[in-house]
Amino acid sequence: MNCSLLPRGFKTNILLQRNLSPKLFQKNMSDGKKQGHCVSYADVKDAWKRIEGRVQYTPIFTSTYLDKLAGRRLFFKAENQQKTGSFKIRGAINAVAQLCENREKLEGNFCVVTHSSGNHGQALAKAAQLYNVPAFIAVPSDAPQCKVDAIKGYGGTVVPCIPTLQGRIDKCDELVKEHSGIIVHPNQTPAVIAGQGTIAMEMLQQNPDLDAIIAPVGGGGMISGIAIAAKEIKPSIKVYAAEPVNANDCYLSKQNGKLTHLKFTPKTIADAVKADIGTNTWPIIRDMVDGVITVEEEEILQAMKLVWERCKLVIEPTSGVGVAAVISQKFAMAKNFDESVKNVGIVLCGGNIDLSVISKLF
Amino acid sequence: MNCSLLPRGFKTNILLQRNLSPKLFQKNMSDGKKQGHCVSYADVKDAWKRIEGRVQYTPIFTSTYLDKLAGRRLFFKAENQQKTGSFKIRGAINAVAQLCENREKLEGNFCVVTHSSGNHGQALAKAAQLYNVPAFIAVPSDAPQCKVDAIKGYGGTVVPCIPTLQGRIDKCDELVKEHSGIIVHPNQTPAVIAGQGTIAMEMLQQNPDLDAIIAPVGGGGMISGIAIAAKEIKPSIKVYAAEPVNANDCYLSKQNGKLTHLKFTPKTIADAVKADIGTNTWPIIRDMVDGVITVEEEEILQAMKLVWERCKLVIEPTSGVGVAAVISQKFAMAKNFDESVKNVGIVLCGGNIDLSVISKLF
Repeated sequence: MNCSLLPRGFKTNILLQRNLSPKLFQKNMSDGKKQGHCVSYADVKDAWKRIEGRVQYTPIFTSTYLDKLAGRRLFFKAENQQKTGSFKIRGAINAVAQLCENREKLEGNFCVVTHSSGNHGQALAKAAQLYNVPAFIAVPSDAPQCKVDAIKGYGGTVVPCIPTLQGRIDKCDELVKEHSGIIVHPNQTPAVIAGQGTIAMEMLQQNPDLDAIIAPVGGGGMISGIAIAAKEIKPSIKVYAAEPVNANDCYLSKQNGKLTHLKFTPKTIADAVKADIGTNTWPIIRDMVDGVITVEEEEILQAMKLVWERCKLVIEPTSGVGVAAVISQKFAMAKNFDESVKNVGIVLCGGNIDLSVISKLF
Repeated sequence: MNCSLLPRGFKTNILLQRNLSPKLFQKNMSDGKKQGHCVSYADVKDAWKRIEGRVQYTPIFTSTYLDKLAGRRLFFKAENQQKTGSFKIRGAINAVAQLCENREKLEGNFCVVTHSSGNHGQALAKAAQLYNVPAFIAVPSDAPQCKVDAIKGYGGTVVPCIPTLQGRIDKCDELVKEHSGIIVHPNQTPAVIAGQGTIAMEMLQQNPDLDAIIAPVGGGGMISGIAIAAKEIKPSIKVYAAEPVNANDCYLSKQNGKLTHLKFTPKTIADAVKADIGTNTWPIIRDMVDGVITVEEEEILQAMKLVWERCKLVIEPTSGVGVAAVISQKFAMAKNFDESVKNVGIVLCGGNIDLSVISKLF
């Protein structure tokens, strides 16, 4: 999964340079957190310093075919080619690195703990490995063997737990007590949110002309970090969350004006966004996300296939959520949308799939 | 398929620049063709001038996991992300552009003709479209509809023919007579061979430290062009052809020291290299290709899966041939191989697959 890219250097392509304008990045700089927000832009910038060189600066892909479908220019941020196969490594490294900086304040040695059978579990195991910190990952006893193997491959200790949310939480509590563990939550830990915000910093370096960024929302760590960073760097930018209709807690929360949880376990092909948004991400989403576009299961599948076929990129279904949103009619009609939104960045959040499972969908 | 890449600009990564050394590129420059060779390095350089800006300067990917498997550093040239989804557009544009330069010498208008149901058919249709030249592609009547649609999508005229080699040739002859057509052969036309050689020019710009290049061989257009260019730019470089055991005419030709055709129609998952090498590519392969590594069908399939899973790139089975070769034991034992071969470039020649068909293999 540790694919790195050695780019070309065409002089004629103006987008090949980093296009970093110091003025742009300093404008509106504010180190203070906004009221009720657990993360500031300064936190995201600090995160970038911590993770630079340890994660991939992932490329952006374009496709004239998909541009035509969407009726605007699309810029796909290929976090499927990120280390560990998803953006999650950004937040995980930032969290572990920050803990290590404060090691003296922590009494004795420490370890990190989380519950995840997916991308965050792999990412935290890898991040902990980089810093020689033990990682205990509570994994549901019914998790696929490939995911268990991936976590072990990065040196994480897999601890089976009862496959319910309560079962995971209980096991995490046990691990915290037993190993002096510190929980790194997949999407509510501030350092994780700040780490994910670096995606927006890179995207606006690669293309400062972006008018909007769209990213899938599950627990909301990525969209919150992106909104914090993007709106500070470029106040005019729109930030949209994309969500499966079948897991639409973010959409409902925005509609109700208050954090709203689903009363059922969502069933969606986009398994990485089944989680609800939480108390740390909700205030940021409430204040800074311009709209939530929901998409049907079939739209997600078709969008994923389009990226496989047209961009020749292996993405997981959750990456298809953002793509489906941007080519949907709903996007054109989203709140705050206007014709000035010509260049849209879409985060392809990950590429971790089990080929033998996914291929049955084609 | 027209995915383009907007690369990062890490200063710390020495491989991010084009690394163009004028001295390196001028060294051993010779405009004359070697005896019996239909293409010279000068032809490849001319081809590059013609196609630059019209094709993707495709990125190179690396994977630490695959490096470990191979026991050396691997650099994957992502021609799966080339326009039309394969390297074939390079040769096709060079051929059509060259014809247009000589338009005055040709009596009246002309069109281009070929027989192909695969990547060359799409590429020639696209190249012809760019130059407003009509293209007639003889396609076997049993070709999959998706391939027919792709050729039509690029403005090519699809002409069904009897699904045998003779049927294709006869239909091409008809088209040539009927439309004052000029045949652009998939792998024996010198301009096509020269165009494919630009792959090596890019690879050695992106990484001048390559000790070897390995590419799949079918008709031999790509490996011949690569050998012509690579050996002129860097005389010490090794060039290896990779071939399915089930379609090993190139291997047998090298072994016998003479052009040897198979007496049967090869059955291989790598459908783009079923063609035999021909009278134009054989002398170049005979003189300039250091070895042929053959691989089994299962090795090709597993190599393709590895690239999907680890590099998150959609490649067609034929791209897996080169990958399978470089991680095989045979590669380590190839003629002329020595321990100094540390950095190996592998051409991922294309990414055109029918997901509904390919997914049955997983």
